[in-house]
Amino acid sequence: MRIGELSRRTGVPVPTIKYYVREGLLPSGELTSPNQAAYGEAHERRLRLIRALLDVGGMKVAEIADVLEALDAPERPLHKVLGVAADRLGGADVEQDDAESAAARSVVAGLISRRGWRTHESNPAAADLSRTLAAMSRLGHGAFVEVLDAYADAAEQVARADLAYVERRVAVEDMVEGVVVGTVLGEAMLSAMRRLAHVDASARLFDAEGPETGTGTEKGTGTD
Amino acid sequence: MRIGELSRRTGVPVPTIKYYVREGLLPSGELTSPNQAAYGEAHERRLRLIRALLDVGGMKVAEIADVLEALDAPERPLHKVLGVAADRLGGADVEQDDAESAAARSVVAGLISRRGWRTHESNPAAADLSRTLAAMSRLGHGAFVEVLDAYADAAEQVARADLAYVERRVAVEDMVEGVVVGTVLGEAMLSAMRRLAHVDASARLFDAEGPETGTGTEKGTGTD
Repeated sequence: MRIGELSRRTGVPVPTIKYYVREGLLPSGELTSPNQAAYGEAHERRLRLIRALLDVGGMKVAEIADVLEALDAPERPLHKVLGVAADRLGGADVEQDDAESAAARSVVAGLISRRGWRTHESNPAAADLSRTLAAMSRLGHGAFVEVLDAYADAAEQVARADLAYVERRVAVEDMVEGVVVGTVLGEAMLSAMRRLAHVDASARLFDAEGPETGTGTEKGTGTD
Repeated sequence: MRIGELSRRTGVPVPTIKYYVREGLLPSGELTSPNQAAYGEAHERRLRLIRALLDVGGMKVAEIADVLEALDAPERPLHKVLGVAADRLGGADVEQDDAESAAARSVVAGLISRRGWRTHESNPAAADLSRTLAAMSRLGHGAFVEVLDAYADAAEQVARADLAYVERRVAVEDMVEGVVVGTVLGEAMLSAMRRLAHVDASARLFDAEGPETGTGTEKGTGTD
C-alpha cells in the first residue's frame, strides 16, 4: 500500500510515519518508483506497536528504538528482548548513597532470596525497587516494607499470567512481540487496575460520598 | 535553618529549592531579614516528598503541584487527594473511537461490575484501562483479556495492602500523605516487582542462561 493508505489505516499522519522511518523505528517501504514506496502488513503492524508503546506505554521514541532493535536482532533471545523492554520502564537513574539506600538494597536482596527469585540485585528493576524503598523511608514511610510481600505475591501472580499468555502464542515472532506488549502495556494495565482497586478499597474503608467519589471526577467529567 | 542547610540535608541544590518556592510547590521560608529566610522541618519533609514524586514517581513538576495543592487544601477529603494523585499516573489522553475502543470499554465496564468495584467507567483509570486493552487488540493481542482477572486479583490484593498500611497511620496528616506516597511510589514499587517476577518466571519457563539472564545486564553493569 502507499504511505497515505498506511496513514489512513493506522491514524498516524504521513509526516510522522516518515519521521519513524528516518529514526529507524519503521523499515522504509519498498521503492516502486524513485519517489514512491510500497508498505505492507508488517509496516502496519510495526506502526501499531510503535504507537501503543508511545501512547499507552508512555515510552520515548529513543526507548522504543532500543526495544525494536532488540526485537529485530537476528537471534534475539527472549530474555534479552524482555530485559530491554523492562529496563525502559525503569525510573530515573538517580542513585543516592545514604543509609536509607544501603538499608533498602539489603531489604531487596532479602526479598529476592526469600522469594527464591532467579534474579540478582544488579537487575535494574531491583535497583528501582531499592530506590523506591529508600525514598519511602526518607519520607518516614519505611514501614511500607510491611506490604512488600503482598506486592511480591501480586507481582508473581501477574508475571505468571503474563508468561502463561506468552506461552500460548505459537509463532516465536508473536511470542517475542507478545512479551514486549505484555511487559509495557501490561504495566499500564496493572497501573490502571491498581488505581481502580484503590477507589473501591478506599470507598469501602472510608466510605464517604459513595461510588466514584473523588478519584478523577474532575478529569472524568472533562474539566481536567 | 538557612536554605543552605536545607539543601545540604536534602541534597537538593539551592537554586532548585528556590525554583520550587517560585512554582508554589514549597512554601517560602520565614523572612528573618530582608534577604534571609528560615526553613523548618515541614519544608524539609515537603522537599523530600517533592523529590520522591519527581525522581521515583516520575511525575512532572506541574503534576506534583496539583497533588500538593490537593494535599494542602483546608478540608481535603482523602478520596479527593487520592484521586488527584492517581489521575497524575494516567496515560496520555489519546482517545480513539474505533471498534476496538468500544469493545474495550464494555470489557472494562463488565470487569467493574463483575468485581463489584465501587467505581465507574468514567473514572480516568478505567479510561486508561480501556485504552490499553484497545491498543492490545489492535496489535492482535485481544486475547490478553484472558489475564484480566488475574491482574484484577493482584490489583485488589495490592490495594488492600496499601489501605491497610494507610489505616495504620494515626495522624490524618500522615495518613493523607501516606496515600499520596503509597499511590505514586507504590506504583513504582509494583512496577519494579513485576519486572523482577518476570525475570524469574521467564528464567523458569524458558530457562536459557541461568539467573539474571538478559534482563538489564547491560544496564546493571552500567553500559546503559
